[in-house]
Amino acid sequence: MRLAMIGLGKMGGNMVRRLRRGGIEVVGFDRSTEVVNQLTTESGMLAADSVANAVMQLSSPRVVWLMLPSGAPTEQQITDLATMLSPGDIVVDGGNSNYHDSQRRGAWLAERGIGFMDSGTSGGVWGLDNGYCLMVGATAEVAAVMKPVLQALAPEPDRGWAHVGPVGSGHFTKMIHNGIEYGMMQAYAEGLELLRGKEEFNLDLAQITELWRHSSVVRSWLLDLTAEALKHDQVLDNIAPVVADSGEGRWTVVEAVEQGVAAPVLTLALQMRYTSQDQIGYAHRLLSTMRNAFGGHAVTSTKGK
Amino acid sequence: MRLAMIGLGKMGGNMVRRLRRGGIEVVGFDRSTEVVNQLTTESGMLAADSVANAVMQLSSPRVVWLMLPSGAPTEQQITDLATMLSPGDIVVDGGNSNYHDSQRRGAWLAERGIGFMDSGTSGGVWGLDNGYCLMVGATAEVAAVMKPVLQALAPEPDRGWAHVGPVGSGHFTKMIHNGIEYGMMQAYAEGLELLRGKEEFNLDLAQITELWRHSSVVRSWLLDLTAEALKHDQVLDNIAPVVADSGEGRWTVVEAVEQGVAAPVLTLALQMRYTSQDQIGYAHRLLSTMRNAFGGHAVTSTKGK
Amino acid sequence: MRLAMIGLGKMGGNMVRRLRRGGIEVVGFDRSTEVVNQLTTESGMLAADSVANAVMQLSSPRVVWLMLPSGAPTEQQITDLATMLSPGDIVVDGGNSNYHDSQRRGAWLAERGIGFMDSGTSGGVWGLDNGYCLMVGATAEVAAVMKPVLQALAPEPDRGWAHVGPVGSGHFTKMIHNGIEYGMMQAYAEGLELLRGKEEFNLDLAQITELWRHSSVVRSWLLDLTAEALKHDQVLDNIAPVVADSGEGRWTVVEAVEQGVAAPVLTLALQMRYTSQDQIGYAHRLLSTMRNAFGGHAVTSTKGK
Amino acid sequence: MRLAMIGLGKMGGNMVRRLRRGGIEVVGFDRSTEVVNQLTTESGMLAADSVANAVMQLSSPRVVWLMLPSGAPTEQQITDLATMLSPGDIVVDGGNSNYHDSQRRGAWLAERGIGFMDSGTSGGVWGLDNGYCLMVGATAEVAAVMKPVLQALAPEPDRGWAHVGPVGSGHFTKMIHNGIEYGMMQAYAEGLELLRGKEEFNLDLAQITELWRHSSVVRSWLLDLTAEALKHDQVLDNIAPVVADSGEGRWTVVEAVEQGVAAPVLTLALQMRYTSQDQIGYAHRLLSTMRNAFGGHAVTSTKGK
Repeated sequence: MRLAMIGLGKMGGNMVRRLRRGGIEVVGFDRSTEVVNQLTTESGMLAADSVANAVMQLSSPRVVWLMLPSGAPTEQQITDLATMLSPGDIVVDGGNSNYHDSQRRGAWLAERGIGFMDSGTSGGVWGLDNGYCLMVGATAEVAAVMKPVLQALAPEPDRGWAHVGPVGSGHFTKMIHNGIEYGMMQAYAEGLELLRGKEEFNLDLAQITELWRHSSVVRSWLLDLTAEALKHDQVLDNIAPVVADSGEGRWTVVEAVEQGVAAPVLTLALQMRYTSQDQIGYAHRLLSTMRNAFGGHAVTSTKGK
Repeated sequence: MRLAMIGLGKMGGNMVRRLRRGGIEVVGFDRSTEVVNQLTTESGMLAADSVANAVMQLSSPRVVWLMLPSGAPTEQQITDLATMLSPGDIVVDGGNSNYHDSQRRGAWLAERGIGFMDSGTSGGVWGLDNGYCLMVGATAEVAAVMKPVLQALAPEPDRGWAHVGPVGSGHFTKMIHNGIEYGMMQAYAEGLELLRGKEEFNLDLAQITELWRHSSVVRSWLLDLTAEALKHDQVLDNIAPVVADSGEGRWTVVEAVEQGVAAPVLTLALQMRYTSQDQIGYAHRLLSTMRNAFGGHAVTSTKGK
Repeated sequence: MRLAMIGLGKMGGNMVRRLRRGGIEVVGFDRSTEVVNQLTTESGMLAADSVANAVMQLSSPRVVWLMLPSGAPTEQQITDLATMLSPGDIVVDGGNSNYHDSQRRGAWLAERGIGFMDSGTSGGVWGLDNGYCLMVGATAEVAAVMKPVLQALAPEPDRGWAHVGPVGSGHFTKMIHNGIEYGMMQAYAEGLELLRGKEEFNLDLAQITELWRHSSVVRSWLLDLTAEALKHDQVLDNIAPVVADSGEGRWTVVEAVEQGVAAPVLTLALQMRYTSQDQIGYAHRLLSTMRNAFGGHAVTSTKGK
Repeated sequence: MRLAMIGLGKMGGNMVRRLRRGGIEVVGFDRSTEVVNQLTTESGMLAADSVANAVMQLSSPRVVWLMLPSGAPTEQQITDLATMLSPGDIVVDGGNSNYHDSQRRGAWLAERGIGFMDSGTSGGVWGLDNGYCLMVGATAEVAAVMKPVLQALAPEPDRGWAHVGPVGSGHFTKMIHNGIEYGMMQAYAEGLELLRGKEEFNLDLAQITELWRHSSVVRSWLLDLTAEALKHDQVLDNIAPVVADSGEGRWTVVEAVEQGVAAPVLTLALQMRYTSQDQIGYAHRLLSTMRNAFGGHAVTSTKGK
């Protein structure tokens, strides 16, 4: 089995390494020649100096796996690939695309006879050693072709990957996975802040998170990582209180709105990240102004700061 | 009708003025002699130089109205008053006490034959001219004695005041009133922030809030005040994005927990104020740490700042 | 001034009546001939038996005001109108369209030389007598043509209507208005449920809402209506606990997600309506299943029901 | 090491079994003689026919471990025990008491020279085989005495138990643990409901939860149990959509209010359980009434149902 991997960043690069360990031949391309050379030397990946060149090194059915930023870069690459590929070939989007885009792209490629698979990929930097969790949307035919690749990326040949449904359903499932991840993370963060806030008990958060890893109801892989991090530092005074968010958290909330499903925990987990990003606090300023207007409550002025 | 008013601050002082306009005799005491003198001169209030002295200037049944900070100051004053008053006298707590405290204090005074009325008082700095909205908890007998006072404080003799139930129910009703106030304020603040955030429309928030005052579904007194404030300044860059909260917002949320009632809007309105007060952002720091731990996502460092 | 009104339902019909009172000539069309005849007789509206016929009864610049359900009906009508109108004519969408649609439609009509105005219209069934609150997006030229119409619909010629910005901004402002409305309504509903839930006080919600109308901080037009409704019935046992939602509440939440603004109160107000609509409670069933799985907690079975 | 175990229900009974496996001598008492006899036969527990009798079978320092319902039963038992124990003896509360109660009881017992340990105990029905996660608040002296017992209950002698701080801190830590548990559960439930709600994908929730157990970011013990349960039934039509809540979830929310910490996810997880328990939906009825009042929107009547 041979495939082309386009995009050799943090995720794509490690996926190449894991595929190579699994005996899969990989032709790799990245905008950075240095990255290509490094992976070629290290893993026996076959180097390509362009996407077209990568495609040329494949034989039918040609499989091109994209690990690109979602949005315009993925869109452009799929459009370009359509001119290089033939009926029966397969494009895989392993990035974090919106599932509506994947459905549209899958249908567009299908009109050209080209197969499409959307693979939601979880595992982060730990995927190289632990294997990736792969949520796959595709036709049965495409999924069958891709099976050996999925087995090599997954933690075991028979677990950690699944063909969950038609094109789009892989990215949909990954989107919800990330929504849940937001909710779980916020739950831990709120709880730990309350532990820390109870100053009279002077609790050791590293001790407690380690403790909870064993037989508690809240044990999880996220807790394992959190406990490990807190062993090194639980003051966190050199970590800024700003939390980035990504498309999938946002799309999950929009999906809930569109389905008419109450998802307050997933929503608030996102919105609390927004508060962390807010440099202005306009709503807060308004509230302070209103309180002054009706109650004569003092307003904290920023003057003189 | 004559009563003693203890505590002549922002609320108590204006209430004396309105009572005097209504022909009620008031004996006033405040820790600040200056405040007492000012009100005496201005309104014809009778001055007292101690609570005991104020009580001595009353005749049976003696009515002492407290406008003190909730918690210890009110608690202490009621305890002290019990030694100065006789069966048939009446203590009124017009401050923002927790209704559980008012129930307890009412029962304690009742054991001594002293009547108690809890008067939740809304109206802020506008109450002097507009009248106060008074939510009163008391026995029928006590409420009957207090009726002329309530009529003088209210906007009209027949509206803006009500005997809503037994002792405690006045402060309970005021607590819920404030909970609703939090929710309404947050609703406006979120909406206005979204108007402002739509930069391509370059909306004039003073124009829109003024517009909404006329025939829209969201018109309200809070909107009147907000529109007025935004006419003078809608940038708000010299107002700090920090919003204070008071006991009643907190107690409302606890009440909802205890009743087993979902009150997410009242709760989140409070919690958003908490985020405005949070100088550390520990939960955010934790989340950023977790993201780094599982995904290798960059952490914004505060080093070098 | 003469215009055509297309769609004479609850809102459109009353707007015709108010325009007629203001001396504006109106050519009216509705799918229901009966409705057209009734309004013609009652208000002196000129009847049309088709949209084309309505357009024919206008002179340049022809103004066609749509009061149609948002989505497909409005879309189709605007597409059709484009073939009947000429450069310089004006289409007004007074319905509850998504502002993105209005921006798109405005641009599409502008390519054909046809003006467009989006008018967010608040006031409900009370608009006929009180006047409507009109939030208008348009070019300065279009707004100038429409001014007499807006003045007739508004509560007063100089208030209750405003040209807030470019095409799309009227519907945007109305969307946010409705988002705030959701939040305010939920705030009142939560507070009143807590008043009712305090059974020992046996509070009279009609009394308290009436009380709050006078000088309280939470007084508003929504409260006026609520107090009036509760006078007739505060048990509400023949009102189903199901609350519909409309596009604008949903779009506001999506807008907040897209702006990256935390709007928990507007969001939860929507999501609580979703819970009221949920006939299945799948998430609740899952939670009950989980509790059983880890703790052996009893599950309430529906068997035998 | 020998101790008395009072309360041999679902948790207490299994803890006796695990202690016996670890070679700890246990004198057991329960209101049910049948339960006492069963455990005596099965595990070699020593039977007691009253608490006093259990205490008599101990030697100094006597250790009495309570596994009783929180609130009045635990309170009463501790009060009673104080008359049976001597200075140097130890009472352990292994139930789900409020930490404020534990602090008060610990201080009260300390005045009598009796030691107290609050042990928050997680693990549910799985604790017997997997060991319990024990969060312990006590003085260093009391914790030292209890160490062999904790080691026998925990999954391993060196993990799954910890002396986290002074009296009260064990139950505090367990309270927060449960708060986090609520949040995590709600996050999974919301996500799974959204997976199910995307009907066009016809997703198999048993497949997806099993898939996520391997290398995904959301893997956890709760997910393990959920996946196992969904294998047997993912329709859940014989599980009622009603979710019970317990003291600890509520206390966590109150703690957040008191600390002034925004904990929206833990709070909403609780409040969504409340919505599942709400048989009346008064807030929803109010909202429906308001919509009718201002907009003439149809109200769903329950008449004739």
